[in-house]
Amino acid sequence: MPHPSDHDDPKPGDSYVQSFARGLAVLRSFGADAPAQTLTEVAASAELTRAGARRILLTLLHLGYVEMDGRLFRLTPKVLELGFAYLSSLPVWTQAQPVMEDLVQSLRQSCSAAVLDGDEIVYVLRVPAHKIMSINLGVGSRLPAYSTSLGRVLLAGLPDDIVQQRLVSASLPAHTPHTVTDPQRLYEIIRQVRIQGWCQVNEELEPGLVSMAAPVVDRNGRVVAAINISGQVNNPPPAQLLEHCLPMLLAAAAKINLLVRAQK
Amino acid sequence: MPHPSDHDDPKPGDSYVQSFARGLAVLRSFGADAPAQTLTEVAASAELTRAGARRILLTLLHLGYVEMDGRLFRLTPKVLELGFAYLSSLPVWTQAQPVMEDLVQSLRQSCSAAVLDGDEIVYVLRVPAHKIMSINLGVGSRLPAYSTSLGRVLLAGLPDDIVQQRLVSASLPAHTPHTVTDPQRLYEIIRQVRIQGWCQVNEELEPGLVSMAAPVVDRNGRVVAAINISGQVNNPPPAQLLEHCLPMLLAAAAKINLLVRAQK
Repeated sequence: MPHPSDHDDPKPGDSYVQSFARGLAVLRSFGADAPAQTLTEVAASAELTRAGARRILLTLLHLGYVEMDGRLFRLTPKVLELGFAYLSSLPVWTQAQPVMEDLVQSLRQSCSAAVLDGDEIVYVLRVPAHKIMSINLGVGSRLPAYSTSLGRVLLAGLPDDIVQQRLVSASLPAHTPHTVTDPQRLYEIIRQVRIQGWCQVNEELEPGLVSMAAPVVDRNGRVVAAINISGQVNNPPPAQLLEHCLPMLLAAAAKINLLVRAQK
Repeated sequence: MPHPSDHDDPKPGDSYVQSFARGLAVLRSFGADAPAQTLTEVAASAELTRAGARRILLTLLHLGYVEMDGRLFRLTPKVLELGFAYLSSLPVWTQAQPVMEDLVQSLRQSCSAAVLDGDEIVYVLRVPAHKIMSINLGVGSRLPAYSTSLGRVLLAGLPDDIVQQRLVSASLPAHTPHTVTDPQRLYEIIRQVRIQGWCQVNEELEPGLVSMAAPVVDRNGRVVAAINISGQVNNPPPAQLLEHCLPMLLAAAAKINLLVRAQK
């Protein structure tokens, strides 16, 4: 990826960059733990002075991204448009859903799509097999790339030197006794995933959880996303997973690839 | 809702407000029709000069919200955090999902939750009864309030004078031959909805589509969201809708109300 020249690149000290970053930090300071905040609370959680927080809150109020109720500020639904702009700009998001729905109906396994962001995967679409799905694994939630099938498929889409850099610099804790945490061993697994075109991960993230993933590739050969199926260990049994589920996962990924490439 | 004094309120001419608004406009210029844009395209769609668009894109690049690939700019998954901050700040979003899942399993009708934003409803949660769901009705999508059951329940949560103001100033096109478009008649319907505590709308948005909605009320008596069930006309038949589905919808709303009020 080319970079703008040093001359043009805005610096962290640049006042415009700083004020924009502070505005977004104020938006992000709201959440499940802080749905409504006073000026003082916003200043504390976004690490701003009261005057700075006040200026940004009044700006957000003026632009319609926050509302004020007495001394309390809250986000408005307008904020959703920002996340929605990202999702609808993803080829996989607009094309993959019907294919993933079909796969879930055939296999009775949950199916998800994710993209890579640094050392993490970010879910962009989830089709649960069972109606009761943990809200914590909704769209926008993140998991470490190295210990998930989606993450290994996405890492396999990067050049070898970048993969090595990422594995050396990433924190690689063991989530279960099965988690592979040795960077060299992970590097070999990811190279193998690139050759075979899919990835299976058994209980490396959570005991009892198995998953298989395949890449979504755009017309330039770039891995833009990955889809997976996940379920409980031995349900279906390992042999059926490889003989029946894997071919259907690969067929679904191939179908999505065609749709993504057909997009203008 | 109290307003900050004129002295403090940032004006549209205020340079900070303007630059923040422009930055957000650049984020919103990406989407299904424009997943990747050149500098020139961004400038055109966000109505900025090339120099202005360049400064904002480099800022977003620096903050990690945009990535650059040759001459093309794309949004990154980091943008999702902004929309996610809003969703997770909603009491209904964190509490309603399991209750809505149960309702869908019992009734085999789709269930959605929405909030009001001006004259529109914004979906914040959707539980489809059939796996194949139109992507166009996902989280973040909008519909006019006056012709939907969710919207009428949300409007009924506002004071009478505000409802009248909204109905007089809103555009009220007929989507079907059944759509009520007379502001006075709509006002009477909304008052009736407030008294009875639920709303049914038959084919006013789309031929063949019927829905029933109920409010979600916080501990201060404020209508913070609405949930609905929707299905095809005559499936279930109208009598069953009122005798069987409505009580279950109201029970689900009551359960969500208790959960929302129990939140700290």
